[in-house]
Amino acid sequence: VEVGDKAREGEPGRRAEMIFSGDELLRGDILNTNQSYLGERLLDLGIFATHALCVTDDLAAMVTAMRESLARRPVVLVLSGGLGPTEDDLTREAVAEALGRPLEHHEDLLGQIRSRFASRGFTWSDTNRKQALIPRGASVIPLKGTAPGFWIQQGDTLVVALPGVPWELKEMWEGAVEPLLRAGADKEDAADAAGGAGSPAGAAGASTAGPAGQSVRRIRTFGVGESTLAEMLSEFDWRGEDATIGTRAALDGVTVILRGAATPDGARKLDAIQERVLAMLGERVFGVGTEGLSEVTGEALRKAGLTVAVAESCTGGLLGKRLTDVPGSSDYFLGGVTAYDNLVKIDVLDVPAGLLAQYGAVSEETAAAMAEGVCRLLHSDCALSTTGIAGPDGGSEEKPVGLVYVGNVARGVTEVERLRLFGSRDQIRERAAYAALDLLRRRLLR
Amino acid sequence: VEVGDKAREGEPGRRAEMIFSGDELLRGDILNTNQSYLGERLLDLGIFATHALCVTDDLAAMVTAMRESLARRPVVLVLSGGLGPTEDDLTREAVAEALGRPLEHHEDLLGQIRSRFASRGFTWSDTNRKQALIPRGASVIPLKGTAPGFWIQQGDTLVVALPGVPWELKEMWEGAVEPLLRAGADKEDAADAAGGAGSPAGAAGASTAGPAGQSVRRIRTFGVGESTLAEMLSEFDWRGEDATIGTRAALDGVTVILRGAATPDGARKLDAIQERVLAMLGERVFGVGTEGLSEVTGEALRKAGLTVAVAESCTGGLLGKRLTDVPGSSDYFLGGVTAYDNLVKIDVLDVPAGLLAQYGAVSEETAAAMAEGVCRLLHSDCALSTTGIAGPDGGSEEKPVGLVYVGNVARGVTEVERLRLFGSRDQIRERAAYAALDLLRRRLLR
Repeated sequence: VEVGDKAREGEPGRRAEMIFSGDELLRGDILNTNQSYLGERLLDLGIFATHALCVTDDLAAMVTAMRESLARRPVVLVLSGGLGPTEDDLTREAVAEALGRPLEHHEDLLGQIRSRFASRGFTWSDTNRKQALIPRGASVIPLKGTAPGFWIQQGDTLVVALPGVPWELKEMWEGAVEPLLRAGADKEDAADAAGGAGSPAGAAGASTAGPAGQSVRRIRTFGVGESTLAEMLSEFDWRGEDATIGTRAALDGVTVILRGAATPDGARKLDAIQERVLAMLGERVFGVGTEGLSEVTGEALRKAGLTVAVAESCTGGLLGKRLTDVPGSSDYFLGGVTAYDNLVKIDVLDVPAGLLAQYGAVSEETAAAMAEGVCRLLHSDCALSTTGIAGPDGGSEEKPVGLVYVGNVARGVTEVERLRLFGSRDQIRERAAYAALDLLRRRLLR
Repeated sequence: VEVGDKAREGEPGRRAEMIFSGDELLRGDILNTNQSYLGERLLDLGIFATHALCVTDDLAAMVTAMRESLARRPVVLVLSGGLGPTEDDLTREAVAEALGRPLEHHEDLLGQIRSRFASRGFTWSDTNRKQALIPRGASVIPLKGTAPGFWIQQGDTLVVALPGVPWELKEMWEGAVEPLLRAGADKEDAADAAGGAGSPAGAAGASTAGPAGQSVRRIRTFGVGESTLAEMLSEFDWRGEDATIGTRAALDGVTVILRGAATPDGARKLDAIQERVLAMLGERVFGVGTEGLSEVTGEALRKAGLTVAVAESCTGGLLGKRLTDVPGSSDYFLGGVTAYDNLVKIDVLDVPAGLLAQYGAVSEETAAAMAEGVCRLLHSDCALSTTGIAGPDGGSEEKPVGLVYVGNVARGVTEVERLRLFGSRDQIRERAAYAALDLLRRRLLR
């Protein structure tokens, strides 16, 4: 959801395009996570992607796609995939043809690739030699895995070719391409300030190019719906501000994203807006930045010097999994009991059989007794519990699918929240686990 | 990985293209799951997607993209998104312009949309009226949510416009579009057989169009690497067979995908190939179809009338989560203990402190003691355990990151497997959980 004026998101002229090669994307074998990663990183640089194409591993189709893209003169054209050693890997050849630059063999690069193969115990085959071919005039991006990347300034457009393997792409993007784009835009700003005609280096070229980047603030919230949040935010009049405000919903909450100019003045404006949003949302905000609920709640436990244990029913282990997603969580997470069967609730967690009979497994009373039980059993300072109906079956009129109780023991006090969750079985379980983490987080704040 | 001849995957001429509208895809706010869904469903119909484009919500850009795609004459062009009521929703207008067909108001459709709004308690606004506009000559696809879809045969190409909301897209695709594509191809096959010139209906047009669909077999394996598997499969000579064989790797194993003609003869050929693959892979195959390890292992427990419990260390609850991903898993899953802290291993799971001191928490001995301990505590028939180093820190030369032991108790016998896993913390934990499920599955087979 976007609140405010979309056009302000990317400066005019600061447009990017992406071309992904790999039939596995078109066959639906894998999701294109590179596209969402690059889209977001580009936006943080003030560059908005207008086209992202997955094209079949066919030389003519790839060349046509590259030419069509270059004709639209984006400041950057990112190519991903097709840099491996197989005959389906055609990005090098396609760039050479689309840009009219012959491929040149780089002996030093070949040596590096060979030693990468050797150090990983992979067998060397001479078909890998083609990975050392780079279009004339291109700069090689240092190897991360065994596929080299490269970049070329072609007219207005910085053409960047990166491997399709996500971690290799990320390391090359952040290590080599972003500095290039920032440097290019900085030079251009300087040239603009001096009345110059723009710099040929980096991402420069288009005279309308904007600042080197954007200031971005990510305000993380939990427990407010995206439409409610968008409505609350729309009550402010942002039009006077040189900033945009948007929201992004996920199972672990809604993120409010503020973007403004990467200038001291822009930062001050974002500070002011951020302050208003934080005041409006109060304890619904669990952080500003990229840390999730598991990290934030874990950090709160660590700071307070408290340990935690979990007693899970409907989440089946997911709550413990979420807590232990964080490296080093053994500092505060002791463990837990998954009591899927009622006998485990009674035998291991000491939930009174009479209480279960009277209120049922999905009840405020059971959630409280589970949390208290695991606290005693594992000698933890705090505890969380979940019990609910994840579906798709097992619901009734009185206790429908999506009814979940999350319990919390902290500082000697037990509290339970009743949730009415929606979505698939998986979504209900994810939301329940996050809701439990958030309950503890808010408790530790007080 | 594709073994054999790629060209055979889609019949020549049976090509599709997709165009997705929605800046949220380009900003990286959401992953394009519609693309992978459609890519796979199309392939099952014998249609290979060559282009999938995400384009910004801009009328001119969308029209250009549609025209470029239509010029390549795919049998089907799927458009997704941009059918809502906001001013960013431009797919109707773009189709009208690209195809030269004016938009027409459908009063009956407007009535349906209004009543959908009413029944969901949404406020009606007159901006929603534009959702009842459909290009002249198009057929409306019945409403699932509140955005109507439509289809038009334009020359060689069936143009289909579907909402961007994944569940609405899926229901319309399976309910309306697939029958249309199958019917079109059937008619064409009949026309071909009669020496005719092909049918104008449905997906017809290109004289090279193939059968209405493909036979597809998905052979699910665990415990063999994708490259090893591809090498094993390449030893067969598939060239005589009218079929393709490919592999798809995921954390829960590698799937071998066989595709052949949707004819009795094609099915017999696939049967023969499948038999050879099953014989070659033996107990590495956990199923044929779409059921995952959690379902298959659960079903084996259910059939054997056995219950299971889990004792987790490095997976932190994930193994229990995987088992309970399956609705109805309470029939065989009792629960578990997550013993992240060594004191929990000792106090709750009864792992001898001396054993822990002698062998360490990450050891064959501890994995065995954990599984046996949870079996006794929860009175389960079987048990699984995990203990390992998920990283990124905590590894040593002797016990590196990725070293994981999975333990199993079944039918009174304890066994432990030592794994050397690779990847991120998350990948190591996922692989460890699946390896534990697979250990139990194989044990129950014997």
